[in-house]
Amino acid sequence: MELLAFLNLDELALAMSQMSMYPLFESAHYIVSVMSLKEQPGAVEVACRSPVACWVSSMLYCFGGAILSAVLLAEPPVEPFSNNSHVLVASLIWYLMFYCPQDLVYSCTSLLPVRLVLSGMKEVTRTWKVLGGVVQAQKKYQNSLLVMIVVGWAKGSGHGLISNFEQLVRGVWRPETNELLKMSYATKVTLIGAIVFSMQQSHILPVQKHQLMFLYTLFLVINKVRMMLTAPSFPFAPVETAIYRVLFGMESTHSPSANEADVSVTSPPETCTAAAEAIKPASPRHNGSVCCDAEQNAAPSAEADVDCSLKLAARDDQQTAAERIRTD
Amino acid sequence: MELLAFLNLDELALAMSQMSMYPLFESAHYIVSVMSLKEQPGAVEVACRSPVACWVSSMLYCFGGAILSAVLLAEPPVEPFSNNSHVLVASLIWYLMFYCPQDLVYSCTSLLPVRLVLSGMKEVTRTWKVLGGVVQAQKKYQNSLLVMIVVGWAKGSGHGLISNFEQLVRGVWRPETNELLKMSYATKVTLIGAIVFSMQQSHILPVQKHQLMFLYTLFLVINKVRMMLTAPSFPFAPVETAIYRVLFGMESTHSPSANEADVSVTSPPETCTAAAEAIKPASPRHNGSVCCDAEQNAAPSAEADVDCSLKLAARDDQQTAAERIRTD
Amino acid sequence: MELLAFLNLDELALAMSQMSMYPLFESAHYIVSVMSLKEQPGAVEVACRSPVACWVSSMLYCFGGAILSAVLLAEPPVEPFSNNSHVLVASLIWYLMFYCPQDLVYSCTSLLPVRLVLSGMKEVTRTWKVLGGVVQAQKKYQNSLLVMIVVGWAKGSGHGLISNFEQLVRGVWRPETNELLKMSYATKVTLIGAIVFSMQQSHILPVQKHQLMFLYTLFLVINKVRMMLTAPSFPFAPVETAIYRVLFGMESTHSPSANEADVSVTSPPETCTAAAEAIKPASPRHNGSVCCDAEQNAAPSAEADVDCSLKLAARDDQQTAAERIRTD
Repeated sequence: MELLAFLNLDELALAMSQMSMYPLFESAHYIVSVMSLKEQPGAVEVACRSPVACWVSSMLYCFGGAILSAVLLAEPPVEPFSNNSHVLVASLIWYLMFYCPQDLVYSCTSLLPVRLVLSGMKEVTRTWKVLGGVVQAQKKYQNSLLVMIVVGWAKGSGHGLISNFEQLVRGVWRPETNELLKMSYATKVTLIGAIVFSMQQSHILPVQKHQLMFLYTLFLVINKVRMMLTAPSFPFAPVETAIYRVLFGMESTHSPSANEADVSVTSPPETCTAAAEAIKPASPRHNGSVCCDAEQNAAPSAEADVDCSLKLAARDDQQTAAERIRTD
Repeated sequence: MELLAFLNLDELALAMSQMSMYPLFESAHYIVSVMSLKEQPGAVEVACRSPVACWVSSMLYCFGGAILSAVLLAEPPVEPFSNNSHVLVASLIWYLMFYCPQDLVYSCTSLLPVRLVLSGMKEVTRTWKVLGGVVQAQKKYQNSLLVMIVVGWAKGSGHGLISNFEQLVRGVWRPETNELLKMSYATKVTLIGAIVFSMQQSHILPVQKHQLMFLYTLFLVINKVRMMLTAPSFPFAPVETAIYRVLFGMESTHSPSANEADVSVTSPPETCTAAAEAIKPASPRHNGSVCCDAEQNAAPSAEADVDCSLKLAARDDQQTAAERIRTD
Repeated sequence: MELLAFLNLDELALAMSQMSMYPLFESAHYIVSVMSLKEQPGAVEVACRSPVACWVSSMLYCFGGAILSAVLLAEPPVEPFSNNSHVLVASLIWYLMFYCPQDLVYSCTSLLPVRLVLSGMKEVTRTWKVLGGVVQAQKKYQNSLLVMIVVGWAKGSGHGLISNFEQLVRGVWRPETNELLKMSYATKVTLIGAIVFSMQQSHILPVQKHQLMFLYTLFLVINKVRMMLTAPSFPFAPVETAIYRVLFGMESTHSPSANEADVSVTSPPETCTAAAEAIKPASPRHNGSVCCDAEQNAAPSAEADVDCSLKLAARDDQQTAAERIRTD
């Protein structure tokens, strides 16, 4: 943190941490949220069939985090709707985005430079939301790091976590997937943010709040812009892969390398017992650490295929596998 | 409101507003609610397979509004079950309706004159429920019109809004439809009621509470009886259609005329840009105001077909369309 | 209760009622819960694909009752997660159960003697949970027996009641079944426990708390062990069948005899009007007490087949049926 002081950024960080999110940044958040709703398959059709369902869906996109964190802390989930000006702005943006003649508003906001700025601004609000959730939870549960992390995570990426129910409003039901089964980039970085802010608030992390806000916001914005301009990739993918390999004896399904079946064999045999056991015919009872059981073969998902490539790969000689680890 | 005073109805309205809903009107509400549950496909089978699931389902029909409004305001959803006498009456009605030998009770209550009276009485309870929800919300959120409308709406037509989850209790899951996507008559009039009562409570509408209760109840009962005796139709369909046309550039899918494909072409080209754009081949990106995109063609719902008749109709010459507007 | 005093068991019962569930018994509950999650089809695959989803699922198995009862009483559903040590133990067990090399932990705990002891200990925690829920509800709703029963039931068998949503976390959605439609043994005995503890707390049942706790725990443990060693059967099946027959005019779908189509005809004609009416061709309107309507024929469940055997059976002469009753 001396680095910030050295670069004379400490004052900037302090000023930034006192910035108000409303109206500018909040509006950017609403615009990007409603845009991503509009880009969902079938959303435009719903907007035409039932403006009420479309409006409710938009509000869940805009205020999903606040609603979910309210539910978790047994506070009224209608709370976000009591702030008249916020709801009015969000509703206006919803209206212009879906029903503007010639689709002018969407056409403007979806231009890459405009979208880049708006998405960057939306990421700024994420910092405030995560911190807000952590502080809100801390008021009720002083000493529970886990509750602080959960509520901060919920407030920061609420829409993602309740997406199944938001889709239900639009008549869509996809139970086979959710943000917990396959975390998106936003959900992952929000989780990281919730963890660091909870640690900061519990005085485990020796850093000041405004400094952490500055650094986390910087990280979010730079990453978002980078991902929009180049290929989307999770910046901590190597760390994630390492954790998954060590703790859970498997490949992270979201690391870029996991998409290439050839590379996924690099998991060391001592951590993924699957590889060793999978050669034996599958036993009928549920056998713990074996990731590639018979059921998985029937699973249509790409990850299953990747995981199960372990089976085939294990038949190769271990020497080759060891070589691949070194070249990975 | 001078009209009420002129007709000497003011005293009657005042007396009516002090009427107690329990036990007579509440019982009528329970009877009509359990009857409509019994008329759901598969409900009788569930009653035979699992009386517990059937009872829970009945309670959600009877107390759905109270449960939903409690959830929205972070009050205990078991609250309605703490009123022993109400639950006892509702349970007795559930039992008699489903398990009475020879099905005597259902046979009696489903006779048209009996049902007419009961349905009228049920509509009376709606006024009390909507007002109750609005007042309940106002206690927590003094200045938020939107929260008052939402909670009043939830309390008045709670069963409809949670129908997806009520069906789940009975093992039925129909995600493709819900009350927001396709509002029923009851949901619509309750929304109107929630709006006018919220405005009255916020002193925007210059009318006294008992007068508004009298007028709204009268409107509900007369309409219900009319709809049960003649064809069901939403009394504000022309207003709804006009609003949809002006605000959202489209036909209301629930107006009676929307069922006739020939008439739905009458939307003026300046509001529904869909008609104009739809002639061009559908572009792969999501293009805002275009209601009839390619996805919609795959949708099996009747509304989609109606909406998409715009496409074909737009090929006709505008002169014919203009003529049709005049004769509409 | 004089029996307990006579057998000098009263002191033992008192000592037992002051026993702390944490850490020993609670840990046994977590172990058995996570084991039953692991034995769900597809759970091991989920553990490999997404440890986060698997962890959330495990926590819903371990703390489902506390979460559900919190929701019902409008208390924060994150409350159970504020107890750091409990969550840590549960998480450790989750980790060892799913990711232990060679699947050592699961192999050990799934040995019959170990499992027998753990399952017995888990049943002990059920008593504490049901009583906890009843007392928790009584604090808010002094005089409502129903609320006490509902919350006690929810706390004691919470995981079962929210199983649909727990499955959703793992990407599984089976709307056609739930614990209300087809109650498991655990759900049934918890319901019985919730009823007796609510009656005891309301001073309807003239028995002391520690005595009831002792008797109920004894009943739970003995039954569980018996069911694990011999064929699983609900001890109150004859009572249940009798109640179903008298109150709802039908066979209990869970009585052992219901599995044999030949025996299910033994329902006396005066209670199950279905048998008599089913011979007539099915009328198109929903006709109350008739359990075997046309829809049921399409139902793929085994119960439907059993119930509908009534139809065929009713064609036999009543004399034969009467004979069968006597020999039942």
